[in-house]
Amino acid sequence: MNASDKVWTAAVLVIGDEILSGRTHDKNIAQIASWLQVQGIRLTEARVVSDDMAAIVAAVNALRQTYDYLFTTGGIGPTHDDITVDAVASALGVPVVVHPEARAILERYYADRTGGPTDARLRMARVPEGADLIPNRMSGAPGIRWGNVFIMAGVPHITAGMLDALTGTLEGGAPLIAETVGCWVAESEVADLLRTIEKTHPGCQVGSYPFFREGRTGANFVIRSIDGELLSAAVASLCEALAAEGHAFTPGGI
Amino acid sequence: MNASDKVWTAAVLVIGDEILSGRTHDKNIAQIASWLQVQGIRLTEARVVSDDMAAIVAAVNALRQTYDYLFTTGGIGPTHDDITVDAVASALGVPVVVHPEARAILERYYADRTGGPTDARLRMARVPEGADLIPNRMSGAPGIRWGNVFIMAGVPHITAGMLDALTGTLEGGAPLIAETVGCWVAESEVADLLRTIEKTHPGCQVGSYPFFREGRTGANFVIRSIDGELLSAAVASLCEALAAEGHAFTPGGI
Repeated sequence: MNASDKVWTAAVLVIGDEILSGRTHDKNIAQIASWLQVQGIRLTEARVVSDDMAAIVAAVNALRQTYDYLFTTGGIGPTHDDITVDAVASALGVPVVVHPEARAILERYYADRTGGPTDARLRMARVPEGADLIPNRMSGAPGIRWGNVFIMAGVPHITAGMLDALTGTLEGGAPLIAETVGCWVAESEVADLLRTIEKTHPGCQVGSYPFFREGRTGANFVIRSIDGELLSAAVASLCEALAAEGHAFTPGGI
Repeated sequence: MNASDKVWTAAVLVIGDEILSGRTHDKNIAQIASWLQVQGIRLTEARVVSDDMAAIVAAVNALRQTYDYLFTTGGIGPTHDDITVDAVASALGVPVVVHPEARAILERYYADRTGGPTDARLRMARVPEGADLIPNRMSGAPGIRWGNVFIMAGVPHITAGMLDALTGTLEGGAPLIAETVGCWVAESEVADLLRTIEKTHPGCQVGSYPFFREGRTGANFVIRSIDGELLSAAVASLCEALAAEGHAFTPGGI
């Protein structure tokens, strides 16, 4: 394998009782996944754990050791249930310290706001020792980077801003590209055809994602590859095979 | 601990490249979480892995051994990328067999449909040896139960039907109940107050979920307990404390 063939991998660890209670639908997995694709990094696993020290520590250590990058979301606010920084520091085996730059940012941010820079707010300047900050242009508290661990906010638009700040700064490989072909057909009708397309086009994966809309059955077929030419050839074969079996299809998906 | 105090736990394993690519937003974690709450079972962890045999086998074994119940979603359709049944069987150490009742259901379901009961469609009658079926009243292929492992569909409305069929059949404990109080306040302003409420009300957890809407900062405070009286007392204390600090609040949340 050449160095350039390396597949860069990442995991997301969502921290929060609110996701596991069903109260809040997670949006960060999909958001980080899409962003990683563009960086040439493949999201390979995601986990959701509750606001529990032991659970967070175990997941952080399992994931940061298995994948090239780990992104955590949630649990970095000012309230008592925000324990991510303490848990990550414990996983890394380093103490929690106050980051002077983070403290200065928070003092500036809260200077003119009701209540001012309280102790609770300044808790958000605490980081695992040796960490760097990730800029947050949406609100006061910055994200945190320690080695291959990225500690992001739980609120999706704040995490979006942090991802923007990280764009282009992480080493990745060739981005996985994808093309979608949609078809109003039961996927079971074309299962053999799809299997053949994947078998005869090495370097391409073919996924089938059925849906049921407006009382009709359909599916989107997604072909993925890191090679644009292989991808185009596979898509052409798929369209040809669908047409040969009399199925109308929609390039780009339905 | 009395037998009746046992906390029943569950995990969800979402199987599918489409979630990890960011293409599809998972809805099954939240849906299963809400359903489990009513059954008195606590969703304690969720994982998302790709359509990869080794990854599924490892996650199935880790989760079914750690929690009382494991629900998998996705990968049980008729196409080549549907490998959940094979992976679960491998994790359980049993062969894959054709379930006669599942086969009969599929033959009936596809009898009058275009293409009929093809080999690809009848693949959906394959189960880990010793499994029972979970009724599916939305489409043909049933779900599968093997011990504490429940193999569900990836399409959310099909999984919803399978959950309906399982309602009331799983042993659980006292359901965790929750009350929400919303407030147009930065959570950092009331962080001390929330910490005090949790400390002075044993048996209750207090969560704080900030949001940013219509240009304003707010938060919902969620108090959870398995004891209705403890819960009501904690909610009353929270409302009193918010009022004493001059914050208007909305019972039920914003």
